[in-house]
Amino acid sequence: MSNFQYFGGLEGGATHSKFVLLRSDGQVIAKSEGEGTNQWLIGLDECCKRIHGMLVTAKQTAKLDAGTKLKGVGLSMSGADEKESQEQLIKHIKEQYKDDYEEVFVASDTWGALFTATPDGGIVLIAGTGSNCQLINPDNTTRRCGGWGHLIGDEGSAYWIAQLALKRLFDHDDNLIVSKSSVECVRKIMHQYFKITQNSGMLQHLYSSFEKSYIAGMCKELAKGAEEGDAMCKEVFAEAGKVLAKHIIAVEPSINESLLKGKGGLHVVTVGSVWKSWTFLKPGFTEVMKADRQNKRISELTLVSLNQPASVGAASLGARAAKTTLPMNYDANAEVFFHEKF
Amino acid sequence: MSNFQYFGGLEGGATHSKFVLLRSDGQVIAKSEGEGTNQWLIGLDECCKRIHGMLVTAKQTAKLDAGTKLKGVGLSMSGADEKESQEQLIKHIKEQYKDDYEEVFVASDTWGALFTATPDGGIVLIAGTGSNCQLINPDNTTRRCGGWGHLIGDEGSAYWIAQLALKRLFDHDDNLIVSKSSVECVRKIMHQYFKITQNSGMLQHLYSSFEKSYIAGMCKELAKGAEEGDAMCKEVFAEAGKVLAKHIIAVEPSINESLLKGKGGLHVVTVGSVWKSWTFLKPGFTEVMKADRQNKRISELTLVSLNQPASVGAASLGARAAKTTLPMNYDANAEVFFHEKF
Repeated sequence: MSNFQYFGGLEGGATHSKFVLLRSDGQVIAKSEGEGTNQWLIGLDECCKRIHGMLVTAKQTAKLDAGTKLKGVGLSMSGADEKESQEQLIKHIKEQYKDDYEEVFVASDTWGALFTATPDGGIVLIAGTGSNCQLINPDNTTRRCGGWGHLIGDEGSAYWIAQLALKRLFDHDDNLIVSKSSVECVRKIMHQYFKITQNSGMLQHLYSSFEKSYIAGMCKELAKGAEEGDAMCKEVFAEAGKVLAKHIIAVEPSINESLLKGKGGLHVVTVGSVWKSWTFLKPGFTEVMKADRQNKRISELTLVSLNQPASVGAASLGARAAKTTLPMNYDANAEVFFHEKF
Repeated sequence: MSNFQYFGGLEGGATHSKFVLLRSDGQVIAKSEGEGTNQWLIGLDECCKRIHGMLVTAKQTAKLDAGTKLKGVGLSMSGADEKESQEQLIKHIKEQYKDDYEEVFVASDTWGALFTATPDGGIVLIAGTGSNCQLINPDNTTRRCGGWGHLIGDEGSAYWIAQLALKRLFDHDDNLIVSKSSVECVRKIMHQYFKITQNSGMLQHLYSSFEKSYIAGMCKELAKGAEEGDAMCKEVFAEAGKVLAKHIIAVEPSINESLLKGKGGLHVVTVGSVWKSWTFLKPGFTEVMKADRQNKRISELTLVSLNQPASVGAASLGARAAKTTLPMNYDANAEVFFHEKF
């Protein structure tokens, strides 16, 4: 019989979730996946059931005895932003699934990502279908900016970029705001992506058959347009870069001094497919960061992307809740793709 | 037996429709109402059936013989913007309801409003739940700006005003854009209107239970805030005034000279509840119109609101299609609420 202890980590999304099983030596011994685990969408009962299901599968994969009780589990979840709902979830799991885990830690979906890259805290900046910025200080105090959905937030997200491109095209055609750059590449992308031949064809996609993620999918095509050198495609990504930088600046007053002074300065863990177009985000992003420099405290910045799923960081938080430290190879878990002193 | 001829007019909305029956002396002899008649939402068959139903009711009210065939009918309808769908509708009615009317005229929902106020053409500027601007020249050439829905258009609408106020509040709280004016009145309105106690309470209204018209309904409360002197409430209406003026300027290059030179200059028929707050739209509206004056042709402008339903104007278009002119009292049908030379 081994002397290992076991830990679990969940990266819980609204439509899809990832679970990971770690051994106390830091080794990932199994991964499993499941449906969405946002309690507001599926209810508390179903949410806990799905997490339990992923644990069972992971144990089977790892050939662990079904009765093995994990020392701790960290759940980093969409829809678990507030203390009250976190406590409800912990209570429910401890009642219904008391044989699964000794300790349960619950946090919002940004926490797993951050603690996959670093044990110290920092900023997570999500730019996927939606967007969100979360500061987590070493003392666990937090500050958030954005993430209010596509109608009044989500700036810099794939949805936002697609919407901005469409808006510029429609405004140009309407003579409402005449574009300096040609709108023809965006028009071609819109026609092909949505399989339409004129602007009015967009109405169904903006009304009756509206799907946020489908519109967001156009962003990938705009990235191709930018790669082929189209000015307007480049511009919308640069605008996204600007507004993403503004999210960092928005949480700046709450950043603990220690996060600014360490090696590499402030670390920002980036999550989401929009960051794949960093080349085109960069001009706007750096412009805003530099312009802000005169008044603010951020003088050095490092952007990293993850090589491991955020469930790994969630597991480390589960271990922390069980008063243990999981050995983590942070250098391997995350990759620096931008570093600059302003 | 009278020598009168009879004409019908429809103001067809997406959720509600109004029908009017006129005598050839211009007298309104009956009105009836019905459900929405947007063919894209209910299909062509059901659409024609509902129009027929309203005609039958109106004939009964007017004590007209059920077999009375109208000389002409004008259908001014939501969802009838394009020539192809207009022709389809005419064809369908002429086949299925050939005993109802001799001539059928179909146009988009802005036409009825305009021809209730004037026989000459002009601009219709809608600012209700959504927004839309339509120029109709005396030669029936048209130009449109906006009306692309709440995601990429509808600027200056009640929805847009409510969204702008919410966005300013959230951006301020997030420290993303710090507001110079206090956001507290808007916060109070949001809390009361949506029955929530914190910003996160908005998420359900922006996601799972999103209803455009419900969010637009907050605009009425913002108007009360403006009346009580709140700076931010006033600002969002002024912003709406700006963007509504920009819609007029956007169609300016297509305006027929004769519409600019007549008595009172360019006439704009305003439709929708946002215009009730003209006092607060006015500062932004006039600012943009004046700033534009240097380069453009609009030197005199008259804004009017309707005293009669747009179905009356639709009936006049039905008469025109039947090569008749219905006597209309345009001065009584519309009321001037703003006139200025720039």
